[in-house]
Amino acid sequence: MSGCVDIIGLGPGAEDLRCPRAARALEQATDLVGYVPYVERVAAATGQRVHGSDNREEIMRARLALELAEQGRRVAVVSSGDGGVFGMAAAVFEAMDHGEPQWRDLDVQVYPGVSAVLAAAARLGAPFGNDFCVISLSDNLKPWGVILNRVEAAAQVGFAMAFYNPISKSRPWQLGEALDRLRVHLPGSVPVMFARAVSRPEEHVAFTTLGDARPEQADMRTLVIVGNAETRVIERAGRDPWVYTPRSVGGG
Amino acid sequence: MSGCVDIIGLGPGAEDLRCPRAARALEQATDLVGYVPYVERVAAATGQRVHGSDNREEIMRARLALELAEQGRRVAVVSSGDGGVFGMAAAVFEAMDHGEPQWRDLDVQVYPGVSAVLAAAARLGAPFGNDFCVISLSDNLKPWGVILNRVEAAAQVGFAMAFYNPISKSRPWQLGEALDRLRVHLPGSVPVMFARAVSRPEEHVAFTTLGDARPEQADMRTLVIVGNAETRVIERAGRDPWVYTPRSVGGG
Repeated sequence: MSGCVDIIGLGPGAEDLRCPRAARALEQATDLVGYVPYVERVAAATGQRVHGSDNREEIMRARLALELAEQGRRVAVVSSGDGGVFGMAAAVFEAMDHGEPQWRDLDVQVYPGVSAVLAAAARLGAPFGNDFCVISLSDNLKPWGVILNRVEAAAQVGFAMAFYNPISKSRPWQLGEALDRLRVHLPGSVPVMFARAVSRPEEHVAFTTLGDARPEQADMRTLVIVGNAETRVIERAGRDPWVYTPRSVGGG
Repeated sequence: MSGCVDIIGLGPGAEDLRCPRAARALEQATDLVGYVPYVERVAAATGQRVHGSDNREEIMRARLALELAEQGRRVAVVSSGDGGVFGMAAAVFEAMDHGEPQWRDLDVQVYPGVSAVLAAAARLGAPFGNDFCVISLSDNLKPWGVILNRVEAAAQVGFAMAFYNPISKSRPWQLGEALDRLRVHLPGSVPVMFARAVSRPEEHVAFTTLGDARPEQADMRTLVIVGNAETRVIERAGRDPWVYTPRSVGGG
């Protein structure tokens, strides 16, 4: 039996937002590797070995997956959303790049999924109807100055933005500083949305503006979405508004 | 019978990369609205009225969808990939915003899909393993100067990038100019990938570098993906390489 590594995006949470291709690969796996809450969610399938690990052990987890595949196992490395967007895909290729030469010959496949940023955008309307960027505010793996430069440049040239990893116990002040920096370049009226656990039972979405946004509105599971200066809000009686960014730019 | 508008992302092409939620909404629709090739692809389902239209008629198409819903039809507005990423979602909300007041009361829902950019990234490896941006190079709806500023800023602060709508008969020179501008700020060694029709039978993927990339390598259906200065290529014997952007930035 020859092993493989399937890097699988589970989608944002709801079962019917998971691609059939990903679901089938999960069923065929002999081993599940990933962050504990994700593998536990999947582990209902029978007979699979579960290798759960903590949040910040991505490279060890990726190496384990490659080692297991080398032993002939069919390994599913799972991420919520899409594995390519702050999920496990980059970690697996980093481990391959710096690991055993024979790991390059393993069968590896990446199964795309609906990322949290796309699920949140769909829930809110169309905040990414024009050019946009996706930034992790975690400075565990990159200097805070690099992140702040990206946030600032994005505001200056008119990208809408999504912030992953906006806040945690060990990173309590970064989101506040990012919002302050945005306020230097964008009007206070720019829509800001806090989208938590979209498509799950515990989903919570809040609509505010850059002027009023407070870091306490986010937690580890929140995606923060910031419009550009032209993003509009369609108010509706008795329902959440729709937020969208026009496809055109200033008379363009 | 009360009408509705379902804004549906079909996914990149392969059937098994379409979310079950989107597939079910398509089946329940009475009317399909969209760009001719997309609605034709879907129209196998029986009994549905098809309202195909040309590529640049998004707002008229969106208005039609809202009018049909007002008449009690269940309307599916389809886009390839994800409707929120240069698809029909923003057009529907623009039409609602500037249209009849009662359109705001219609039941509208956005069904996320695997966008072309996520499908291409999965095919290539993990080029968006760090912060990234998504830019349409079409200057039909925004000034070219705005687009070029965004491309330049993205290069300067280290975003990996995906370019939608890189080239067409009526926009033959824009991609070349964007690549030239990138060469001012990024080393020629930066990986550039041309990903066409990923997950379809006619899929074609080409790997090159910023120094060697030529606009003729793209057509209307190509997504151009540009790494950042740290993006790496893992060569493999007899197979396409893997391309990934490390999660960390310069010792961060």
